Amino acid sequence: MDADEGLRRLRALGFGEADADELWAHFDGAERRGKQGHGYARIPWLEGLEGYEPAAQPTLLEEVNGFQRWHGGGAIGYLVLGRVVRTQLERPPARARLVVCERTFPTGMLGHHVRRLADGGLVALLTATSPRRLGHPDGGPKLAGTNPLAIGIPSSGRDPVVVDASMGAVTWGDVVAGLAEADDLVPFGGEHAHKAFAVALGLQLLVDSLVRDEGHGAVLLVARPEADPVPALRDLAAGVRLPGDS
Amino acid sequence: MDADEGLRRLRALGFGEADADELWAHFDGAERRGKQGHGYARIPWLEGLEGYEPAAQPTLLEEVNGFQRWHGGGAIGYLVLGRVVRTQLERPPARARLVVCERTFPTGMLGHHVRRLADGGLVALLTATSPRRLGHPDGGPKLAGTNPLAIGIPSSGRDPVVVDASMGAVTWGDVVAGLAEADDLVPFGGEHAHKAFAVALGLQLLVDSLVRDEGHGAVLLVARPEADPVPALRDLAAGVRLPGDS
Repeated sequence: MDADEGLRRLRALGFGEADADELWAHFDGAERRGKQGHGYARIPWLEGLEGYEPAAQPTLLEEVNGFQRWHGGGAIGYLVLGRVVRTQLERPPARARLVVCERTFPTGMLGHHVRRLADGGLVALLTATSPRRLGHPDGGPKLAGTNPLAIGIPSSGRDPVVVDASMGAVTWGDVVAGLAEADDLVPFGGEHAHKAFAVALGLQLLVDSLVRDEGHGAVLLVARPEADPVPALRDLAAGVRLPGDS
Repeated sequence: MDADEGLRRLRALGFGEADADELWAHFDGAERRGKQGHGYARIPWLEGLEGYEPAAQPTLLEEVNGFQRWHGGGAIGYLVLGRVVRTQLERPPARARLVVCERTFPTGMLGHHVRRLADGGLVALLTATSPRRLGHPDGGPKLAGTNPLAIGIPSSGRDPVVVDASMGAVTWGDVVAGLAEADDLVPFGGEHAHKAFAVALGLQLLVDSLVRDEGHGAVLLVARPEADPVPALRDLAAGVRLPGDS
């Protein structure tokens, strides 16, 4: 899919020009990083998705020092996080801020959002919930979303480190893109899959315990760095590819 | 080892009575949860460990709304986190607080600390760094500690959910306890070990980017819950054992 077609189809869904551009940048960035599950395949997926309003705007419900609460207000999660990220960059915290985003779904490739924060000089940790698709490795009902954990760390001079790890052996995006079967969507880790399941469940409950309006949401921690550990780590790594490197 | 012997040996190392009691509660609790690597074996390990002062006290260096910075000041990490946890319970945040703990090592079983916070009604997410023992699954130098991620979620009526997952296939504690070989200490996940490696590295850099005094440290996020998702999750789980259940 090229940009002309992608933007045309997004605008046809009712997204304004700036929002369509932001969505396209997300999907195109995912494709360029080899994450097809978060890429162009999401456009036909959005064409069939219900429950979002292309013209809706997220709302900053509450702000105190070190804390913000947002509500998606019917907007699609990608654009809620886009607005949240821009707000952090415009008004960074004095030290740190926890940002709870209610009704924020789908949020796409979380690495995209923390990369923008890291490129702007902020440390970020982000998770987001999604439909329950992971069960305990020993069996039983699906209890947790694939709930990725993304961490972005700025770096002087060179690229930030951007971690973006889903707790599933494959992503739902891979299933959407036809790259995996739904049955492959189990906690990653094989004999240690209980660890990925535990982290997925912990992240699920972290979000679920912090939102007032029940539903899929995101929790972002953003902080000003006090040190610049990435360059020394890259030296130590001696060429080993670090998370987020292209 | 019984309590008499454990407490005697801890006091012989120079720990005061309250601190020896707190350390014993940690080690004994780990044994009771089947985490021998964090249990009694740590007493002979402490007898051979250098770099801590049994009488030292951690210091609260900085406090602004939503943020605290602590320094271990030579105290052993277990007791630094013990003091930090008590402080959060005595003065919980209005909404949320990021707590950066510099020079805080070793910190033991992180689930112990977040469980205390969850028992006191607070949501908590905690990580801590340790010597670099995990390399990239494809090879190269050791770049990250085993860097566990612990998440504690309070629950009305029933037990909290307590996640405590190290990013290693075994823990250093298992090696200390003679339950595993040092060579077994690789990122967990088998074919997906790059995910656990990425999370370990992200958590490493999260801590390293937030401390001013370079060295092993801990980062704690503590927040007041707005919802009570655990009882409904336990109903949905229909008897499946959840993380932290005994």
